[in-house]
Amino acid sequence: MEQKGELVSFRPDIKVVDCTLRDGGLVNNFEFSEDFVRDLYKANVAAGVDYMEFGYKASKEVFKVEDYGKWKFCDEKDIRAIVGDNDTDLKISVMADVGRTDYKKDIIPKSESVIDMVRVATYINTIPAAIEMINYCADMGYEVTINIMAISTASENELDLALELLAAQSKASVIYLVDSYGSLYPEQIRRLADKYIRIAEKYGKRVGIHAHNNQQLAFANTIEACTIGVSYLDVTMSGMGRGAGNCYTELLMGFLRNPKYRISPVLKFIENHMVPLKKAGVVWGCDVQYMITGNANQHPRTAIAFTGEGRTDYDNFYTQITSYE
Amino acid sequence: MEQKGELVSFRPDIKVVDCTLRDGGLVNNFEFSEDFVRDLYKANVAAGVDYMEFGYKASKEVFKVEDYGKWKFCDEKDIRAIVGDNDTDLKISVMADVGRTDYKKDIIPKSESVIDMVRVATYINTIPAAIEMINYCADMGYEVTINIMAISTASENELDLALELLAAQSKASVIYLVDSYGSLYPEQIRRLADKYIRIAEKYGKRVGIHAHNNQQLAFANTIEACTIGVSYLDVTMSGMGRGAGNCYTELLMGFLRNPKYRISPVLKFIENHMVPLKKAGVVWGCDVQYMITGNANQHPRTAIAFTGEGRTDYDNFYTQITSYE
Repeated sequence: MEQKGELVSFRPDIKVVDCTLRDGGLVNNFEFSEDFVRDLYKANVAAGVDYMEFGYKASKEVFKVEDYGKWKFCDEKDIRAIVGDNDTDLKISVMADVGRTDYKKDIIPKSESVIDMVRVATYINTIPAAIEMINYCADMGYEVTINIMAISTASENELDLALELLAAQSKASVIYLVDSYGSLYPEQIRRLADKYIRIAEKYGKRVGIHAHNNQQLAFANTIEACTIGVSYLDVTMSGMGRGAGNCYTELLMGFLRNPKYRISPVLKFIENHMVPLKKAGVVWGCDVQYMITGNANQHPRTAIAFTGEGRTDYDNFYTQITSYE
Repeated sequence: MEQKGELVSFRPDIKVVDCTLRDGGLVNNFEFSEDFVRDLYKANVAAGVDYMEFGYKASKEVFKVEDYGKWKFCDEKDIRAIVGDNDTDLKISVMADVGRTDYKKDIIPKSESVIDMVRVATYINTIPAAIEMINYCADMGYEVTINIMAISTASENELDLALELLAAQSKASVIYLVDSYGSLYPEQIRRLADKYIRIAEKYGKRVGIHAHNNQQLAFANTIEACTIGVSYLDVTMSGMGRGAGNCYTELLMGFLRNPKYRISPVLKFIENHMVPLKKAGVVWGCDVQYMITGNANQHPRTAIAFTGEGRTDYDNFYTQITSYE
């Protein structure tokens, strides 16, 4: 494996993608204040962040509008209420889950939209449906990425085939390595990133990483992947995200050397919005129960429930999670 | 750089060193309850931890006894009150700072002591004094390690000379790579660990790692160092330690594959002692101010003061820390 770039220089292919509203929305049901969203947008612009993901483009047939905050659906008018025509260098992204997005209805032509990029999220068994969706969005004029979730429970062979298929047949420009369960160690991330890059490069595509912090490895895995050539790096303010959360924006801003990135707007945003959010009782971040599910390579839903119940009987939880019964 | 060992097997040279009382003592002035210390000892024995560090062997001339909890001084009788003759596989360690230990008075012959290992901590400019102290302790019958602190601000050439000197002239059996400021990234840790190992191996010595969590990299740096051959791995329960704290015992226990290590006693200890300690207001762990000093390669004392004052004006702090004035 070859190292790409060095600690004192920077690679122009690197893009920072803020997912605070999207992954953080899974913590608070997408109920962010207007001030929060507006200031986050301003902070991202000022910090030189490349993409800001506003949320999901979820199907209003599958999900009831009244059950969620607006960023679950990302209506064009709601994004425009924050960004106007977005006359900035920051690009705007939304996530669209395979099978949970009415993309033929809700993804309008890029020429009419302020959205720049659609990130399609798929499991490995829905790749053909993902390819249809990717190519539809690409043909509508968007940049498209593909996030393959839960790969730590897929077979290596299945993953190889999925990557080849996506690289060869989809119009996605970026393939994302996603550590859904926060179960992967840096040496595994490097090996996987190397695999993704070798396949993606053959087809002129880039690779991204979306890490989870179950084992306090989200930042480490992100920069290790970056060091060997991964370009798109997902972060959230104070690591806000489902369960153990994500790679912290403030940590990545300290690591990157491109002078266009500035940490001050991030620190100000944290002080003004993330500290009050935590004080108000919104809970995320690495804790023992997430280490346990991460280490066991399991979905964190049991750990999220454990957190919600205010439990601290970690050893009982460990026994439950690792039981074969 | 060669990888030593694999994710599914284990290396018998690996030793886990619990530093909860010693590094955690820097958070609460070594004021641990008897129950805490006794249960920690039992948990370490049950978990298969290799060494438990009880605290410092600090000079009673330099430090007033009434100003600290007893584990600042680790009197023989106080350790024996917990462990008796320590008829277990767990070995007992104390730390002794160069210039702050009356070692000729306070380090008694090993044959009369329940202590197994003395860990000498030195800055790079006190290495000759460290060698005297190391060899004195080794001649008294102890295993001895040497921890060189604050290497991230030393020159590479100075470090090379220090390592050669310690390896050739000291009777220490382990040389510790210490990331005092939590400023080092995994790629730097791997390179440094490789350097330490090459020099140590020539003289039949092992290498250890003591990481800090300023940038949420303590666990990542510990396992990365381990993967390329570092043997002695420092951890603390829930990462308790000065400022941002250390590598979490519970994370490392999940990573190691040696069947002698058991995570359950660790989880029970956390539930019974670390959760109440945090609830009582004892504060440590990664936070924005520690990321900032770690990223700036500075001692965390300013961040500790910032924490103590309950401040959250991170951007002001960043400006202060990075100012050249």
